[in-house]
Amino acid sequence: MREGMATKHKTDVLPPTNRDLLQETVVAHLATARPDGALQSNPVWFEWDGTHIKISQTKARQKMRNVRHDPHVALSLVDPENPYRYLEVRGVVDKVEDDADRAFIDHLSERYLHQRPYPNHQPGDERVVVYIRPTDSSAMAA
Amino acid sequence: MREGMATKHKTDVLPPTNRDLLQETVVAHLATARPDGALQSNPVWFEWDGTHIKISQTKARQKMRNVRHDPHVALSLVDPENPYRYLEVRGVVDKVEDDADRAFIDHLSERYLHQRPYPNHQPGDERVVVYIRPTDSSAMAA
Repeated sequence: MREGMATKHKTDVLPPTNRDLLQETVVAHLATARPDGALQSNPVWFEWDGTHIKISQTKARQKMRNVRHDPHVALSLVDPENPYRYLEVRGVVDKVEDDADRAFIDHLSERYLHQRPYPNHQPGDERVVVYIRPTDSSAMAA
Repeated sequence: MREGMATKHKTDVLPPTNRDLLQETVVAHLATARPDGALQSNPVWFEWDGTHIKISQTKARQKMRNVRHDPHVALSLVDPENPYRYLEVRGVVDKVEDDADRAFIDHLSERYLHQRPYPNHQPGDERVVVYIRPTDSSAMAA
């Protein structure tokens, strides 16, 4: 990391210089808070729709229990071309919608794996779309 | 992500199958909790010494304010050879030691950049070594 170069953008929410990373098909790392007080970090696929960062989850996943308990989350993602360059987005889960026909997970699978439908669907998995609204961010530009 | 394949290892703390990732020179993503209740996620360099995950910080960094407020952290890291395979470590900051001569940041710089000393040192930066003790983990093996 290029330590000491992070800048914060309280007013813009998303920094103009690094928001392009939200268009990349990179894995983001999602921080959530567990009801027991521990923190959790997981790689996730995502899509940015211009207002929300959307991720796919199953209803039974621990991450869902976490965000129901505390809607605060953060994501960080690194430029695949430049490991010095990253974007961090802090935000809150605004809403969770059923993905009953799995349209969104299949869309993400096509985006990340070039496979549709999502090849790792498990019988009984009930999918939801989690909408994360950015409230703050930081960035490091090389 | 290969959704639905995560396994937890409450007793082992670190899963035998994926703990090798702690030897890789990959960037880990560190989740911390901010005093205002928001979460934070940042890419970090690290080194595993068999007992602690060690990271380098400057005393003035927000991450340090966060862990002084709440010692819970989590890290996730993805296998650079296999994006399906990852390791998540949850833990607590056990201790923070001065890195007055910058030996540890220089060591990390050599490990990650093959450069010594660390090329982005800023005058006035006071470095510390943060020792993270794993308390729980999850892994996804492809």
